[in-house]
Amino acid sequence: MHVQLNPTGVLNLLSQLEVDLLQQSSTSERYRLFRNCALAVLNVGSHTDSSSEIYNKYQDFDIKLIARERGLKIELTNPPETAFVDGQIILGIHEHIFSVIRDILFICQKYERELTEAKEITHMVFDMLRNANALRVNSDPNMVVCWGGHSINEIEYKYTKQVGYELGLRGLNICTGCGPGAMKGPMKGATIGHAKQRITNNRYLGLTEPSIIAAEPPNPIVNELVILPDIEKRLEAFVRTAHAIIIFPGGAGTAEELLYLLGILLHPENAKQVLPVILTGPKESRAYFDELAAFVEKILGKEALDKFEIIVDDPKRVAQTLKQAMPKVREYRKQQGDAYYFNWTLHVDHDFQMPFAPTHENMAGLDLHLNQPKQALAANLRRAFSGIVAGNVKDEGITAIKQFGAYQLSGDSDLMQEMDKLLQAFVAQGRMKLPGSTYIPCYKINA
Amino acid sequence: MHVQLNPTGVLNLLSQLEVDLLQQSSTSERYRLFRNCALAVLNVGSHTDSSSEIYNKYQDFDIKLIARERGLKIELTNPPETAFVDGQIILGIHEHIFSVIRDILFICQKYERELTEAKEITHMVFDMLRNANALRVNSDPNMVVCWGGHSINEIEYKYTKQVGYELGLRGLNICTGCGPGAMKGPMKGATIGHAKQRITNNRYLGLTEPSIIAAEPPNPIVNELVILPDIEKRLEAFVRTAHAIIIFPGGAGTAEELLYLLGILLHPENAKQVLPVILTGPKESRAYFDELAAFVEKILGKEALDKFEIIVDDPKRVAQTLKQAMPKVREYRKQQGDAYYFNWTLHVDHDFQMPFAPTHENMAGLDLHLNQPKQALAANLRRAFSGIVAGNVKDEGITAIKQFGAYQLSGDSDLMQEMDKLLQAFVAQGRMKLPGSTYIPCYKINA
Amino acid sequence: MHVQLNPTGVLNLLSQLEVDLLQQSSTSERYRLFRNCALAVLNVGSHTDSSSEIYNKYQDFDIKLIARERGLKIELTNPPETAFVDGQIILGIHEHIFSVIRDILFICQKYERELTEAKEITHMVFDMLRNANALRVNSDPNMVVCWGGHSINEIEYKYTKQVGYELGLRGLNICTGCGPGAMKGPMKGATIGHAKQRITNNRYLGLTEPSIIAAEPPNPIVNELVILPDIEKRLEAFVRTAHAIIIFPGGAGTAEELLYLLGILLHPENAKQVLPVILTGPKESRAYFDELAAFVEKILGKEALDKFEIIVDDPKRVAQTLKQAMPKVREYRKQQGDAYYFNWTLHVDHDFQMPFAPTHENMAGLDLHLNQPKQALAANLRRAFSGIVAGNVKDEGITAIKQFGAYQLSGDSDLMQEMDKLLQAFVAQGRMKLPGSTYIPCYKINA
Amino acid sequence: MHVQLNPTGVLNLLSQLEVDLLQQSSTSERYRLFRNCALAVLNVGSHTDSSSEIYNKYQDFDIKLIARERGLKIELTNPPETAFVDGQIILGIHEHIFSVIRDILFICQKYERELTEAKEITHMVFDMLRNANALRVNSDPNMVVCWGGHSINEIEYKYTKQVGYELGLRGLNICTGCGPGAMKGPMKGATIGHAKQRITNNRYLGLTEPSIIAAEPPNPIVNELVILPDIEKRLEAFVRTAHAIIIFPGGAGTAEELLYLLGILLHPENAKQVLPVILTGPKESRAYFDELAAFVEKILGKEALDKFEIIVDDPKRVAQTLKQAMPKVREYRKQQGDAYYFNWTLHVDHDFQMPFAPTHENMAGLDLHLNQPKQALAANLRRAFSGIVAGNVKDEGITAIKQFGAYQLSGDSDLMQEMDKLLQAFVAQGRMKLPGSTYIPCYKINA
Repeated sequence: MHVQLNPTGVLNLLSQLEVDLLQQSSTSERYRLFRNCALAVLNVGSHTDSSSEIYNKYQDFDIKLIARERGLKIELTNPPETAFVDGQIILGIHEHIFSVIRDILFICQKYERELTEAKEITHMVFDMLRNANALRVNSDPNMVVCWGGHSINEIEYKYTKQVGYELGLRGLNICTGCGPGAMKGPMKGATIGHAKQRITNNRYLGLTEPSIIAAEPPNPIVNELVILPDIEKRLEAFVRTAHAIIIFPGGAGTAEELLYLLGILLHPENAKQVLPVILTGPKESRAYFDELAAFVEKILGKEALDKFEIIVDDPKRVAQTLKQAMPKVREYRKQQGDAYYFNWTLHVDHDFQMPFAPTHENMAGLDLHLNQPKQALAANLRRAFSGIVAGNVKDEGITAIKQFGAYQLSGDSDLMQEMDKLLQAFVAQGRMKLPGSTYIPCYKINA
Repeated sequence: MHVQLNPTGVLNLLSQLEVDLLQQSSTSERYRLFRNCALAVLNVGSHTDSSSEIYNKYQDFDIKLIARERGLKIELTNPPETAFVDGQIILGIHEHIFSVIRDILFICQKYERELTEAKEITHMVFDMLRNANALRVNSDPNMVVCWGGHSINEIEYKYTKQVGYELGLRGLNICTGCGPGAMKGPMKGATIGHAKQRITNNRYLGLTEPSIIAAEPPNPIVNELVILPDIEKRLEAFVRTAHAIIIFPGGAGTAEELLYLLGILLHPENAKQVLPVILTGPKESRAYFDELAAFVEKILGKEALDKFEIIVDDPKRVAQTLKQAMPKVREYRKQQGDAYYFNWTLHVDHDFQMPFAPTHENMAGLDLHLNQPKQALAANLRRAFSGIVAGNVKDEGITAIKQFGAYQLSGDSDLMQEMDKLLQAFVAQGRMKLPGSTYIPCYKINA
Repeated sequence: MHVQLNPTGVLNLLSQLEVDLLQQSSTSERYRLFRNCALAVLNVGSHTDSSSEIYNKYQDFDIKLIARERGLKIELTNPPETAFVDGQIILGIHEHIFSVIRDILFICQKYERELTEAKEITHMVFDMLRNANALRVNSDPNMVVCWGGHSINEIEYKYTKQVGYELGLRGLNICTGCGPGAMKGPMKGATIGHAKQRITNNRYLGLTEPSIIAAEPPNPIVNELVILPDIEKRLEAFVRTAHAIIIFPGGAGTAEELLYLLGILLHPENAKQVLPVILTGPKESRAYFDELAAFVEKILGKEALDKFEIIVDDPKRVAQTLKQAMPKVREYRKQQGDAYYFNWTLHVDHDFQMPFAPTHENMAGLDLHLNQPKQALAANLRRAFSGIVAGNVKDEGITAIKQFGAYQLSGDSDLMQEMDKLLQAFVAQGRMKLPGSTYIPCYKINA
Repeated sequence: MHVQLNPTGVLNLLSQLEVDLLQQSSTSERYRLFRNCALAVLNVGSHTDSSSEIYNKYQDFDIKLIARERGLKIELTNPPETAFVDGQIILGIHEHIFSVIRDILFICQKYERELTEAKEITHMVFDMLRNANALRVNSDPNMVVCWGGHSINEIEYKYTKQVGYELGLRGLNICTGCGPGAMKGPMKGATIGHAKQRITNNRYLGLTEPSIIAAEPPNPIVNELVILPDIEKRLEAFVRTAHAIIIFPGGAGTAEELLYLLGILLHPENAKQVLPVILTGPKESRAYFDELAAFVEKILGKEALDKFEIIVDDPKRVAQTLKQAMPKVREYRKQQGDAYYFNWTLHVDHDFQMPFAPTHENMAGLDLHLNQPKQALAANLRRAFSGIVAGNVKDEGITAIKQFGAYQLSGDSDLMQEMDKLLQAFVAQGRMKLPGSTYIPCYKINA
């Protein structure tokens, strides 16, 4: 089965030189990455979060770039059928395919050498969002970033939908990591809320990365998809795009996100930042938040608790709180001469910008002692959880674990014990993997 | 609690003379009807289908028209809170309120004397749809009318959502009677399908009537609401607007709709009409369709069966079948020089246009014998079921039943038995009332 | 040569009943009026202002309404070629043809009996503007009505263009009587001004009447054309639509307009109205304004002079003055709760609303004495000038003059002398007819 | 006088890194070029074509880039007043200022090293047009490039307006070099034609270059302005954007354009290209075209005459001919798989792409002999005329002439004589300079 698709977005208008370069790029060593991401996007209906399962299932899938006088075209061979309706690709998926080409093959050509300067890294994040048309100049603050697990239970999932619905009723837009679970619920809910309020320029922004996209394929409701090159740039994109952040229950990935966020908000330069953060879930998840809050307080101190609010079982209040905060966000940006569409004044420490490769060596070498500045500790803890996510669902991580066994983590025994407790709780609550599979920990805590 | 609202739609641009007339109208004997419809629209979250319960609950609700130099404004006193988000009325409900004023107070001023000529009645239906901006000149056939019960079980409800989703994925729009159940499910499903296909000019057309609107308040997803003055004009609006019709499981109202439709399609002048009709439901509802088909075959004959197709448990095939039929609908209209937005060439017999008041006398007088032309029989059966709907959920009907007891129906014993069987099945399947209430039949079959 | 056209605007969506009525109307005694107006609109390139010349030239022109299932279509036989580009009618003219049908045949069906009440007459004016989509709910005051002669010299014409250009640069829209000369210049100028300011929702509103349309056919730049039934309703439409008024040099028609305006503004109930009026022209036209001002002062008194400002030879200052006045207009309307798109609070005396038929008898019977209230005098003078316009360029007037000789006007000798002087000056300045023809007065002043 | 302006177009969304680079660039050696172009754009009402006059007049004009958190802002000091309306800059000029920054400071950062490869040069032309949003993906061929003198007489100017009007009536868009004369007339005419046809997405594309922009400042009707870095890229932009080309009377620049065009169309690879070319002017200009055609025939042969058509004094036929050719242009592009918005298949020889610096040495060294391939001869003649344009109106050229005297041109005496004759005719017809100044030739022909 062969299908040809015309480009959408920026790729619709390329020079012959650019098409040549794209073709070369697509057949080079980037091919595998590009093909896999395209496959992930096409495979959206899937019910597994194991990349390798997906790759195995569609071994005969192929994607090729074709040059014409007037530009680009692509050809899919044996794509997953679920992406099609009566032989026509679903428009949302069509757009996602070209987001993949745009972000994996096209814009990256400008960033071949590794970036090390803060200003350059932030520029790249900005450039990718702009190139994806995900920065809207003339709109007031209204983007709520929703974080949370891809593997949550039915009650939690319904709760995320309810929150999304209440946000949508208040004209707020949604940005998530764009996988299933807590990343999909808020968007589905908001769709109904927006419909009731007759809002048609609604935004469902999905920010993902190549190594996670297969495990957490973007739902086609996502109407703006950006694939940042690594988790660090993805996180920076989240926090600079956000006008508010909601954290739903989740596993290691969600803990990573919270630690990243706290590390940034605890930085003295961000003391005055207006960025409301709410942790929320149904009453059944109260324990989860208690544990998380206890962990944060013990490890990062009471001031860290001030950076967020916990609201249990009250979707309406979550939405009201954030809606009421928007004028304050606007006021702050205005005072600073800052943009509404990108938070330039937020200080993101270099430590948080530099990619961390979760090799066994790097994981073992992490400094997990309490006697360091809070924000440095937060940065290291963030890396530890990032590695655990890789070991759980990212292709390279899974392969490395198969080869070398579990990651070894060590540090202060107090800290190690707290961390162990938290992770155990995640395992017990089934937050590490999609239901149906038994979780085998990819890490070992050495207290 | 007082809330003032500015007008939307055509009411946004009125002369002082028109505002004066509206005010007079709103304080006359029409006030009660108008107030009750407005209340119904505001009360959308409600979980009852008893109009009188609603009216009792909100006895202190009031709605007033206020004149300003530049036009109209309305004031609500003690409206139901569920219509508001943080003190602001939901835009969809706001629009519905003004649809009520437009259709109950405004346009009806043009139709004060009773219409008896076929051409005039059709003109009025057209005029009300046009005035509501519900006729789109430049679009291809894509409107699927979905009929079915307001009281269906969870499995059936999910099924209607699934069908709506598949229709939405194929770019088809939805028109329903705009209450809960089978009238809401297809719209919710289509909302998601449309979102995935990036369709933003989606239409969720709701056609209702004053006497049913409280029992079946329009969901705010309905983005075009028209309140026709009686069930006959509402049915004519359905069939002239439809490019295809789906019938989900339902009770007496759905049987009424099917009989109306068959009566029209069996008319010799409509022999060549292209209007696909599909009866569909989940596999659990197979029995329902079997009974219905048996009833139709026995009473109206085999040719009546040819007018529709039954598809059980296959949402995708339902949507595919209708999508593939659209070019044929288009072709037929084009050949006839007919509009796509209104089926002028469809012959609707005068019998089907004239309002039937379900008084005890009229009900008892219905000619329910087999020895009459099929279409006359269909018309009379339609009236019988119409009366039963009134007795079940319409304010006047319920009051009459309370006063005079059950309607008496009589006719050929064969026919009466078949009818009894069908109604018994509806009762057994819980299709006559919303769950939670016990059904007491409002009719008595005298075989 | 036969050409068929599809309807535009409201006529695009008619019921079969409405099409039937339209057809009947078009073949009745209204046919001649309708055909002549249609011809006038098609004949826009013409260089004569004699209606009868035009009607003679195109005796074989015909226009017919055709009914289809889905609505209306029209057929033109032997239309003037200038309306077409490569066999396709110019879209602007296409729209104008359907404005004629809309206003001459369609909407008038609602107003068959003669209106006598003030509120009804104003409602009709409003209704016709609304039906033509010429009332914009969401825009700030910006409509400048420009009055002035259809027969002005090249210097004056260029001046009107220059004023239009400066108005266009300031985002102001133009409304005129939509003929040539001072009615066309401001629109052409504004087109360039709007283009430089990237304004694409510009409005060029033309208000005309059946008896003048042939002599002053609407330029196709006019993108909203409304044909009011008589000069009184046309004048009311002008003043209720206007946010400001400019009067360029002109002849009897312009004097009529000025007297009408002064009659209204001098009314005590309008004492606080904010409606800026500027008389302007090139320096070569200074004498014209001096004479006009002298006439006004002598006849209507000093207070009448306060109602307008004369600006000679300064297009920029004209535009600046009006632009700066717009916030005051807005403020006044807001305070009164009035609309921006229609000046409801402006009091138009019944005397000014009632049609005046310029028969020889009525003209001779006009009370032109000074000993009456100013506004009554203004009303009578307005009628006298209205009659002179009819005798100059309107079909019926010209015919009556041919038959019965010049109109006889009589009154106070002072007043009669002033009027004679003014009219003589108009004749001497060539303001009564298009250049190339010698003017024979259609009136006789009996001092 | 200080004025601050917010950016438009792509500059509205810049990263801090980009703003830093822009600021650096604007204060470097590029500052003079940038300031002068900005001044030229602001000075649009000017009546001189001498850049140095303009620069002298506004010596205290300054333009500065200001960085804010959220991006760029500019500040003008002592800008020409004619660019403002009541203290507000005209929006068209506002946009042009940012076109200057975009093309002179911003996009050029990507092209710092000199381009030599054909594919790269074409890519740059494409990239600049794309970045200016001047490539429209979804529109059929309709762009008519109009060439001709900036210094033409009133009759010729009116003729260009008339042609523009007829093009506009037929829905065609206009692209010119965007100065006065034949570059402005077609746009003004088309504005009226477009208005009559209710076309609001009209395009008035101006392609200019830094060294000519002061002498030929873009009229603010130009709604897309692109400043290509040199005449060669500007010419390539013209021919790749054009769906048809009209050449009005003009001087040396127009001859340059015709020779460039013939050189390309005579190339064997372009034998099948569909690109209609019409030379046209009023009957008074017939002699001009006769001379031009005679020159072309003598120097480049009869086949060169086949590449264009001459239509004298018939604006309607010009527009009809081009309108009728559009489907053929479309068909050809489609067959080739080429874009409608950019003519990729047109072969532009490397000779025509490489910039020619008209120094005295280069001018003297031009090979102007007949015994070379036609297209090489056309290329050299093109360069000779290009040099003469520089000597006439470009800043550097005028300075060089002042310093070193007239350019010396030599070659075959036949050719030299023909060239001399043509240039003499241009001088006699006043086509070398704006009226009011006496022309002193900047070249000497050595036969």
